[in-house]
Amino acid sequence: MTPVVVRNIERAATGCIASLGSHGVATVHEAMGRLGLMKTYMRPIWPGACIAGSAVTVLAQPGDNWMLHVAIEQVKPGDLLVVAVTADNTDGMFGDLLATSLRARGGVGLVIDAGCRDVAVLDEMGFPVWSRAISAKGTVKATLGSVNIPVVCAGALVNPGDVVVADDDGVVVVPRGDAVAILAAADRRTANEAEKRDRLASGELGLDMYDMRGALAKAGLRYVDTPDEV
Amino acid sequence: MTPVVVRNIERAATGCIASLGSHGVATVHEAMGRLGLMKTYMRPIWPGACIAGSAVTVLAQPGDNWMLHVAIEQVKPGDLLVVAVTADNTDGMFGDLLATSLRARGGVGLVIDAGCRDVAVLDEMGFPVWSRAISAKGTVKATLGSVNIPVVCAGALVNPGDVVVADDDGVVVVPRGDAVAILAAADRRTANEAEKRDRLASGELGLDMYDMRGALAKAGLRYVDTPDEV
Amino acid sequence: MTPVVVRNIERAATGCIASLGSHGVATVHEAMGRLGLMKTYMRPIWPGACIAGSAVTVLAQPGDNWMLHVAIEQVKPGDLLVVAVTADNTDGMFGDLLATSLRARGGVGLVIDAGCRDVAVLDEMGFPVWSRAISAKGTVKATLGSVNIPVVCAGALVNPGDVVVADDDGVVVVPRGDAVAILAAADRRTANEAEKRDRLASGELGLDMYDMRGALAKAGLRYVDTPDEV
Amino acid sequence: MTPVVVRNIERAATGCIASLGSHGVATVHEAMGRLGLMKTYMRPIWPGACIAGSAVTVLAQPGDNWMLHVAIEQVKPGDLLVVAVTADNTDGMFGDLLATSLRARGGVGLVIDAGCRDVAVLDEMGFPVWSRAISAKGTVKATLGSVNIPVVCAGALVNPGDVVVADDDGVVVVPRGDAVAILAAADRRTANEAEKRDRLASGELGLDMYDMRGALAKAGLRYVDTPDEV
Amino acid sequence: MTPVVVRNIERAATGCIASLGSHGVATVHEAMGRLGLMKTYMRPIWPGACIAGSAVTVLAQPGDNWMLHVAIEQVKPGDLLVVAVTADNTDGMFGDLLATSLRARGGVGLVIDAGCRDVAVLDEMGFPVWSRAISAKGTVKATLGSVNIPVVCAGALVNPGDVVVADDDGVVVVPRGDAVAILAAADRRTANEAEKRDRLASGELGLDMYDMRGALAKAGLRYVDTPDEV
Amino acid sequence: MTPVVVRNIERAATGCIASLGSHGVATVHEAMGRLGLMKTYMRPIWPGACIAGSAVTVLAQPGDNWMLHVAIEQVKPGDLLVVAVTADNTDGMFGDLLATSLRARGGVGLVIDAGCRDVAVLDEMGFPVWSRAISAKGTVKATLGSVNIPVVCAGALVNPGDVVVADDDGVVVVPRGDAVAILAAADRRTANEAEKRDRLASGELGLDMYDMRGALAKAGLRYVDTPDEV
Repeated sequence: MTPVVVRNIERAATGCIASLGSHGVATVHEAMGRLGLMKTYMRPIWPGACIAGSAVTVLAQPGDNWMLHVAIEQVKPGDLLVVAVTADNTDGMFGDLLATSLRARGGVGLVIDAGCRDVAVLDEMGFPVWSRAISAKGTVKATLGSVNIPVVCAGALVNPGDVVVADDDGVVVVPRGDAVAILAAADRRTANEAEKRDRLASGELGLDMYDMRGALAKAGLRYVDTPDEV
Repeated sequence: MTPVVVRNIERAATGCIASLGSHGVATVHEAMGRLGLMKTYMRPIWPGACIAGSAVTVLAQPGDNWMLHVAIEQVKPGDLLVVAVTADNTDGMFGDLLATSLRARGGVGLVIDAGCRDVAVLDEMGFPVWSRAISAKGTVKATLGSVNIPVVCAGALVNPGDVVVADDDGVVVVPRGDAVAILAAADRRTANEAEKRDRLASGELGLDMYDMRGALAKAGLRYVDTPDEV
Repeated sequence: MTPVVVRNIERAATGCIASLGSHGVATVHEAMGRLGLMKTYMRPIWPGACIAGSAVTVLAQPGDNWMLHVAIEQVKPGDLLVVAVTADNTDGMFGDLLATSLRARGGVGLVIDAGCRDVAVLDEMGFPVWSRAISAKGTVKATLGSVNIPVVCAGALVNPGDVVVADDDGVVVVPRGDAVAILAAADRRTANEAEKRDRLASGELGLDMYDMRGALAKAGLRYVDTPDEV
Repeated sequence: MTPVVVRNIERAATGCIASLGSHGVATVHEAMGRLGLMKTYMRPIWPGACIAGSAVTVLAQPGDNWMLHVAIEQVKPGDLLVVAVTADNTDGMFGDLLATSLRARGGVGLVIDAGCRDVAVLDEMGFPVWSRAISAKGTVKATLGSVNIPVVCAGALVNPGDVVVADDDGVVVVPRGDAVAILAAADRRTANEAEKRDRLASGELGLDMYDMRGALAKAGLRYVDTPDEV
Repeated sequence: MTPVVVRNIERAATGCIASLGSHGVATVHEAMGRLGLMKTYMRPIWPGACIAGSAVTVLAQPGDNWMLHVAIEQVKPGDLLVVAVTADNTDGMFGDLLATSLRARGGVGLVIDAGCRDVAVLDEMGFPVWSRAISAKGTVKATLGSVNIPVVCAGALVNPGDVVVADDDGVVVVPRGDAVAILAAADRRTANEAEKRDRLASGELGLDMYDMRGALAKAGLRYVDTPDEV
Repeated sequence: MTPVVVRNIERAATGCIASLGSHGVATVHEAMGRLGLMKTYMRPIWPGACIAGSAVTVLAQPGDNWMLHVAIEQVKPGDLLVVAVTADNTDGMFGDLLATSLRARGGVGLVIDAGCRDVAVLDEMGFPVWSRAISAKGTVKATLGSVNIPVVCAGALVNPGDVVVADDDGVVVVPRGDAVAILAAADRRTANEAEKRDRLASGELGLDMYDMRGALAKAGLRYVDTPDEV
C-alpha cells in the first residue's frame, strides 16, 4: 500500500460519543462482549482524564512524526488522534507544540503507541494523552505513513471514525457502526450497578447476589474447616 | 490438588499487625533479614496508602475472577486479599463492586498478581490495591481455584494468615509465626534511625558513622586525585 | 580496572548548569542533536521535579550500595549522583537516610539505574530521584566499585562532571566540554518556540508553518477523498 | 459480538500461496510496502521451517483452548491456524495431540499468540509452530471464543482466508485480495536480488550500487580522516 | 532468618523420580492439577535434555554465587541444584567448572533463576541447565545465603527434596510427599494418550472424541455459513 | 554533534585480537575485572560462533539502516560492525545482502542493538551476528547517523578500534589500549583452569580447593542437620 491520506471519514453521532465516554472504559468494554481493549501498557500521562472521540488514525514509522503533522489537518472538533507505528517504538513523537495545534483544531486528545514528551506542560494544559512511554527522544520527519486507514494500535484494530474511549483504566475502541448498540448495552449495564453496589455495601455477598453457590458446588468446590483437611 | 476453600485460619494479633504496618515495608523487609518481598512490578494504584492485614489467599485462573467472590466470604475485619494466578495474567479481576463488597466485610485492601480496574473510583473510595497492572479487561467466572491455601504471589510465598504489609515501596510478607519476632527487630531498627538521620543531616558521612573506611581500604579501594591516575 | 575513587573532577560553570536545567530535558536533548538521553525506563519517583547538576558517577555491583556511601564524600554543592550497576538490578540501593546525607553535602538529586526505596519520605523531603524501579529490597555492603570514572547509566555514557538534566520527560547527559555550546543551541531553540506556539494556537497548521507540503508531495503522499479510493 | 463460527471462508489460489511461501517472510513483507508483520516475539519452536497457508482464525480466552478444538473442524488442506487471545497469555494451548489432529485435517502449521507445549515431540513430527512462548501450562475448556472472524494476532490484523507466511524471520500476513499483486511485487524483488548479491560479493559497495553518495552528501554527511576532526 | 545449610533432607524414591522424568513436564504438570510450573522464562541452554532429580535448594544473593559452592557439598547422586535469588538477576552464576564439580558429586543438572555461562562447553559436556538468561557476567563470593531451605524459584515453591522434572517444555516441581500419587495420575494420563493420538491421526475430531458439541451448544456457540451472518 | 564518518581508526594487533577470541567471552570479561559486557539480550542468531575483531562503530536511527551501507566502506579485513541505535528498536536492519557485502570487505561479523533478518541464509553462509531481535521488518534510508564515533551498544561503551569478542555467552568489549594487558590476564586465568577442572572432576570440592570454609564460618554460616533446626 502506498502512503495515503483519506480526507473524509464518517463519524458516530456526537451525543452517542459523549454518552459512551460517560460510561468509562470498563463498562464500554464489557458492553462490547469484552473486546476492543488496547494493551495495558497504554497509560495516561496524568491521572483523571476521561475522554471519548472519533478516531483520526495515523500509521507512522519508528522515530518519525511527520504524519502527525499531516493528520492534524484532518482533525475536526471532537476527534482524537490514534497513532500506530510500524514497529515497536517509544520515541517522543508528540509534545506541547503538537498538542497546541491539535487542540486548536478541536482535537480532544491523543492515543499513541509510542512515546510522548513535554508531559509536565501537557499536564498544565490539561491535554490528555495515553501512550506506551514517556520519552524526550526527538523524531525526524523523513518517511511517509498514512492517515485515516485501518491501523492496529496497541493490539486493537482501529478504523477511522471509530469511537475511542479512554480513562484511567485504559483505552477501548468501539466500531462506529456498533456504537449505538454498544451504548444501549452499556446503559443497561450501568443501570444495574447502583443497586448491586448498595446490596454489596450492606454486606450481602456476591456469592448470594449472583446466586453462585450452586454452580460452585456443581463444579466441585470443596469447603473444609482447617488446613489439615486439604 | 482439588479446588478447596479453607474456612478457618489463624491470624496474628491485631496489635502486632498494626505495629508492623506502622514500620512500613522497607523496615519490615530489613527486619526479616531481607526476605519476603514481592516483585517490584507490584505497584499501588494510587500513592500514599500504607496498610497491614492478615492474608486471605486466593489461587485464581488467568482471566477468571470467580474465586474472588468465594474468598470475600472468608474475610474477617482486618484481613486483606492476596490473589495469585496460575499463569501470568493482567486481566482486570477486581473493580469497585468487589471493593465495595470486600470493604463491607472488613477487608482493608487487595494485593493481586494480575490487573485491577475502576481505579479512579477506587481512588475516590480510598480503597488500596497493589497490582501488577491496571486493566479494564473483563474476566469470566468459569473455573475453580482455591482459597486459603499457600500461594506464590509475585514471587513471594504467602500462607493464609500471614501478615502482609504494603506501602509505596511495595509489598512484604511476614510469616504469621514470626510476626512477633520480626516486629521486635523492626522496633530496634527504627529506634536507631532517628539518631542516624540527625547525624547524617548534620553532615557526618556514612563512611564515618558506619566506620567503613577500614573495610574499604582492606578490600583494596584506591583513592586518586585526578582521572589521569586511574 | 581496579576499584578507584577519583577525588577531583572538573565541573561546568554553575550558571551554565542552571540555565540548561531551565530549558528542560526535551529541549536540551534536541539541542544536542538528539543524543544523550537515558532509556525511557528511568522515571522520577514523584512528578514535577526538574533539576540539573554536575555528575558524580558511581559504578556499583548488583545488590550492593557500598559505593554510594563512598561517593557522597566526593559530592560538592550542586552535584547529583549518577549510579550505574554492572548488571541489571532493581534493588533499593538508596533511601531516606542516604538522601539526608546527600542533601547535607549539597547534592541536588539522584539518577540511579537500579531501585530506590522510602519513596513516600523522599517525596515529603522533596528529594528528587530518577530510577528504573521502586523497591524496598535491601542491599549489602560487600564489594567495591568505583567513583568518578566514566559509566554507562541507562544506556547513556556519563563522564564525571558532565551536566545532567532531569525532569518528567526523563534524563539527558550533556558532556561538560559541550555545555556552553549546547546551552546556546538550547537558547536558540527556546526563543523560537513561543512564536510557534502562538501561531499553532491560532489554528495555523504545522504543515504550513514548517512548509512541509512540497516535501510531502515530492515524497509521494497521496490524498484521496474517501476510503474507497485507497 | 456473540461467539460465532464461520464455516465458509474464501481462500487465495493454492499456487499463489505456495509461491508467496517460496519467497519467505522478509521479501513478502517488503513487497507489501513493509506492512503486515507480526511482532518479533513470535518465534518458531524449531528452526528451519518455512510455510505458507490460508488462515483459519481463532479468538480464544486466556488459559482456555476450547476454541482450538472447534477450529480444527473448519480446517481444509493447506490451511494454518492463527490463534489470537483476548489478553496477553503464554499458556500452553497447543501440544502434540492437537497437532496430530490438525495435521490429519490437512493443516500445515500453527501461529499462536500464546504458548505451545510438547515441543520436543512437535519437532520430531516436523510440525511447525510460531508462538510467543513455550509453556507446559495446561488450559481449561470453559469459555467460548470465535472462529473465522477478523482477529489481531501479535499486532497484525488477520482476516480468515488471508495468506500467512512464516519462517525463521517471523510471520507476515497477506490480505487475500492483495495476494496476487503482492506475489508479483515479490517476484520482481527477488529477480533483482541475485544480481545485487553477485555485485556485492565481488566487493562493489552498496554506496555505489545504490548510488547513495549524492544523497548522503546532500543530507550533510561529513567525512573526516581522524577522530580529532570530529 | 539467618543463613543456614541443612545437611540432611529426605528424598523421594529413585524409581519414582525416574518414572516422573519419563513422563515429561507437560504430563506431570497436568497430573498435579495444573500446578507447580516455573515461569516460562526458564529455558534449557541446549535443546533435548529431559531430567528429573531431587532438589537441593539454594537461596543466593544477586551477583553472588558463593552459596553454589556450599550447596554442591550437600549434593548426592541423582540430585539437581535449584537456585533462587533474592532479587531478579541474570548474572552468570554457573559455568563449566561448577558443572564439573556438580557432576562429580552425582548432580544431574541445574535449575537457576539467574544466568548461566560457558554454555558451549556445557553443551559439549551434555550438562543440562535451565536458566532465565545466558550471561558471561561474573559474580562475587561475598554474601551468605542458605542451602536446603524452602525457596521460590521462578514463581514456584520448591522444598528441599522435592522432585523437579525439566525438559524442553520447562520445569515442574512435585512436592516430595505427593510424588507417588502424582506418578500414578501421570501413568493414567499417559495410558490414555496413545489411543487418543491414533484416533485423532485417523481424522476423528476432538469435538467428537471429547464429546464437546453439546457443551458448546449449551454455552451458546453459533455456527453461520458466511461472514455476512456474523 | 553533526553526522560524521571517521575514516582512519587505530586497531589492536591482529595476533592479540585472535588470542583474545580464543579465550572466549567469559574469560575475557573476568580478565577485565568483570567489565565490558553487553546486555544479555544480545544473542547469536545461530549457535556455535566465536569471533573477535576490531570494532567499526555505527550510530543509526530507529528503523533506518542507511549508515550500515556507509560503514561497510570503512571496514578492513578483520573488522566487525558494531551498530548502536539512538532509541530501542528491533527492526531488521541487516540481512544477507549486507552480509555478503560486509564479508566481501573482510568483515568477520556483526553486533547490532537492533534486529537482523534472513537468518536462515546467514546461518547457511556461516555469517555470525549477535542481535537483540530477529525481525523481517524493513528499514528506510532517510536519516544520517555516524560511523566510527564512540557509541553505547547494548549497555557497553564501544570506541572505534576496540576489540570485540563474541560467542554463545554474549559480547564483551576490550578497550584497544588495554588489549595487551587484558590478554595477559586472560592467559593467566586460562592457565589455571585446566588444573582446577581436573581437581573438581575428581570430586574435590570448591569449598576446599578455594579454601572457603573459614570465610564462610567467619561470615556466620550455620550448618544444621535437619530442617527442624532452622
